[in-house]
Amino acid sequence: MKKVVIIGAGFGGLNTAKVLSKNKKLKITIIDKKNHHLFQPLLYQVATAGLNESDIAYPIRSIFRNYKNVNVYKETVVDFDFNSKIVITDSNKHSYDYLIISCGTVENYFGKNNWVKYAPTLKNLSHAQQLRNKILNAFELAEKTNDDNERKKYLTFVIIGGGPTGVELAGAIGEMTRFTLAKDFRNIDPRLSRIILIEATNKILPTFDHKLINKAVKDLESLGVQVWTKSMVTEIDDNGVRIGNEILESATIIWAAGIKANPLTEKIPGKKDKMGRIIVNKDLSLENYPNVFVIGDLAHFEQNGKVLPGIAPVAMQQGKFVAKLILSEVKGKKRTTFKYFDKGQMATIGRSKAIAEIKNLKLSGFIAWVTWILVHIMYLTGFKNRIFVILQWAWSYLTLKKGARLIIDD
Amino acid sequence: MKKVVIIGAGFGGLNTAKVLSKNKKLKITIIDKKNHHLFQPLLYQVATAGLNESDIAYPIRSIFRNYKNVNVYKETVVDFDFNSKIVITDSNKHSYDYLIISCGTVENYFGKNNWVKYAPTLKNLSHAQQLRNKILNAFELAEKTNDDNERKKYLTFVIIGGGPTGVELAGAIGEMTRFTLAKDFRNIDPRLSRIILIEATNKILPTFDHKLINKAVKDLESLGVQVWTKSMVTEIDDNGVRIGNEILESATIIWAAGIKANPLTEKIPGKKDKMGRIIVNKDLSLENYPNVFVIGDLAHFEQNGKVLPGIAPVAMQQGKFVAKLILSEVKGKKRTTFKYFDKGQMATIGRSKAIAEIKNLKLSGFIAWVTWILVHIMYLTGFKNRIFVILQWAWSYLTLKKGARLIIDD
Repeated sequence: MKKVVIIGAGFGGLNTAKVLSKNKKLKITIIDKKNHHLFQPLLYQVATAGLNESDIAYPIRSIFRNYKNVNVYKETVVDFDFNSKIVITDSNKHSYDYLIISCGTVENYFGKNNWVKYAPTLKNLSHAQQLRNKILNAFELAEKTNDDNERKKYLTFVIIGGGPTGVELAGAIGEMTRFTLAKDFRNIDPRLSRIILIEATNKILPTFDHKLINKAVKDLESLGVQVWTKSMVTEIDDNGVRIGNEILESATIIWAAGIKANPLTEKIPGKKDKMGRIIVNKDLSLENYPNVFVIGDLAHFEQNGKVLPGIAPVAMQQGKFVAKLILSEVKGKKRTTFKYFDKGQMATIGRSKAIAEIKNLKLSGFIAWVTWILVHIMYLTGFKNRIFVILQWAWSYLTLKKGARLIIDD
Repeated sequence: MKKVVIIGAGFGGLNTAKVLSKNKKLKITIIDKKNHHLFQPLLYQVATAGLNESDIAYPIRSIFRNYKNVNVYKETVVDFDFNSKIVITDSNKHSYDYLIISCGTVENYFGKNNWVKYAPTLKNLSHAQQLRNKILNAFELAEKTNDDNERKKYLTFVIIGGGPTGVELAGAIGEMTRFTLAKDFRNIDPRLSRIILIEATNKILPTFDHKLINKAVKDLESLGVQVWTKSMVTEIDDNGVRIGNEILESATIIWAAGIKANPLTEKIPGKKDKMGRIIVNKDLSLENYPNVFVIGDLAHFEQNGKVLPGIAPVAMQQGKFVAKLILSEVKGKKRTTFKYFDKGQMATIGRSKAIAEIKNLKLSGFIAWVTWILVHIMYLTGFKNRIFVILQWAWSYLTLKKGARLIIDD
C-alpha cells in the first residue's frame, strides 16, 4: 500500500487529497496545524462582521469522514528526512512514498517584525476575530472619549497594501462606517470615519486592466475610502503610521502589504526565489526528489515567462494535477507537465460592487459583483456552508445589518 | 429630563431598557462590559459546536439603534456614589435619577480559585470558544497518541455540577461522541468516550419532579453519560479529579457547580444572603435608596417563603416591572410590589429529548424537546437570529453534523 503524505489542507492540499482518496489502495495522510480548511478569499468578511467563522471554514476530517483510507493529524511539521522519506512533526513521524508540500505563505513585514503588534495581519480565523474586535472596539472607544484628538485617532482606519485583500478590507470597513453602523452611536458619526488605503507602488490591484483599476478606485471613494498610492510607510507605532514627512494618527492599522514562503521551506533543499518560494520542476516535483511535490503559494512555477500568482485557482489546479500524476504513475504510466488554465481574476468592493477580468471580458459594478458572488459560493466547501453564506449575504444585502458584530474578549 | 442608568444588558437590564425607551422624555444609559446581549440558556450549544456565536448574541446598540434616547457604553463599573447618585466606570462618571443594577452572577469555586485553570466554567462567549477548543482538541490529541493511558484521559470528559447547565453540557457532549464525531477518526472510536456528570447532592436537576429527574437520567445514560450523585469533588489538578478515595483521570473538566453574586456587590450597602445577593425591598428597590433597583440573578427576593431562582423569566419580569414602576412614578403615581408569575421550567438532553414542568403538566422526551425549542426560539432577540438558529437546528437534526466544529487558536 503506497503512502501519500500531504502537508497543509489549503486549496492545494485539499484538492490533492480529494482526487487521491478515490484510489482505495493508497493510504493518505493529511497533516495540518489547524483542524479546518479555510476559504481564505472570504476571510476579510469574518474580520468585518459580515460572516461567521463556520461559514468559511470546515473541519478537515469531516470532509473525509467517509474515506477510510484518509487519515488527518492536527500536527505541526518541524522537519524532513528526504532520503529516508520521513516527515517529522511536533508529535509523530510519518513515512511516505509520495509527499505533497502545500503549506502556503506567511505575512512578511520585510524585517520590521516589531510592526506586527501595531499593524496585525489577516491570515487565519484567530486573526480575523482579533481584527474584528479591534475594529469594533475603536468605535466603542470613540463613543466614550471626550478628547477630540483621541476620537479622531479611533475613527481613522489605515490599511497598508493595495492588493485584493487590502482593497476588499478597505471597502468592507467603508461600507460598515457609511451604512451598517451609521445609526448605532450617539456621540460620534461613524460616517465621518477616515479610511485610508496605502500602497507603495503607483497603483492598486496591479494585475488588473487600468480601466478596471480606475473603476475600483471610484467605487472605494464612494464608500469613503481614500486611496494613497506611491506612499511608502516608513514607521509604525502605537500612535499611527509615518509616510515620508507625514504622520497619520490611527488606532487601527492593518497589514496587507506582503507575504513570504512558510519558514518551513528552510528545511527544503534546492533553488528558491526572493520570496523564499521553491522553484519546482515542470511536473511540480522538487529538484532531485521526484517523489516530493511542492504546490500552491509555496511553488515558484513559470508559464509563458511569468510566475503563476498565489491564488486559489492555481493551487487547486496544481493539487488535482499532482493527484492525477500519482494515480497514473502507480499504474506504471509516464509523467506529464503542468499547465495552468487561467480563468480570470476578480476583486470585490463593498456590498454590491466588484471588478472582474475573464479573458478579454472586463466587468465592473453590480454585474461583476454577482459574478464574484456566484464563483465564490460555487467553490465553498460543504453544502451547508453554501446555503448559510447565501442566506447571510441575502440578509446583509437586504438589511445592511452585519450579524456577527460581536466583540469576543475575556 | 430624568436620567436612568442600567448596569448590565442581560435579560433583566435589556427588558428594563426596552420598556423605558418608549418614553422619549427619559434619557437612558446602558452600561455593559460586553458589546452584546447574550442568550445564556443556549451558551452550551456554542461550547459544543452546535451554534455560532452570532446565533445567540446580539449587539446591544443595534437593538436600540432607532431609540435616540438610549445611550450604550461598553465600560466596566468600578464604584458607586449612592448619595450623589453617580456611577463610576473605568472611563467615565454617569449621574442618574434612577439606577437599575442587573449585572448578575459569576462562577463560584468556593475558595478553590486555583481550580479554574483545570476546570473552566461557562459564562460568556469567550469561555464557550475556549471550551469548544478544549473539547475538540481532546479528540485530536487522542487520535495521535500511542499511549493507552493518555488516550483514555483525553477521551474522558468530567462535568461537575448537576444543574441545568451541567446536564445540558453532558448531554451535548454525549451526543457529539455517539453521533457527530463517530465516523471522523481512524485510531480512536469516539463512541467509547467516557462522559461523567458529577453532583455532590443526592440528585441532579433538584428543582424538578422526581419522575422527570429519573427520565433525564435515563436519557443521559442513553447518550453514554454516567451520572454520579452524592459525589463530592475534593481535588482537581492537571491529572483529573479526586472524589473521596477515587481518582478519575481526565483532560477535559468543566465546572458548572456554583455561582455567586458579581463582586461589584461589595460596593453596594445593605443586607446580603450567603451567595452575596442583595436582599431587596418588595418593589425591588435597595434598602434606604428607593431610586436604586436590583434585579435578576443579583436580587434576593422571597415569594411564598422561597427565594426566586436565578433564571431568565424572573429577570425579564423584574426588568419590565421596574421599568413600568419608573414610568408610573414620573407621572406621579404610587409604587406597587413585585410578584413573579411562574411559567414553569425545562431542561434539554441532547438532540431530541428534554424534560419540562409547566404548572401541573409534566412533559418528557420528544414532545418536551419541541416545547423547549419553541420557547427558546421565541425568546431569542432579533429576527435574524431566530431564523438562523432554526435553520442550524434543522440542519443539525437532519444530518447530525455540527457546523461550528472549529478549533480557533493562534
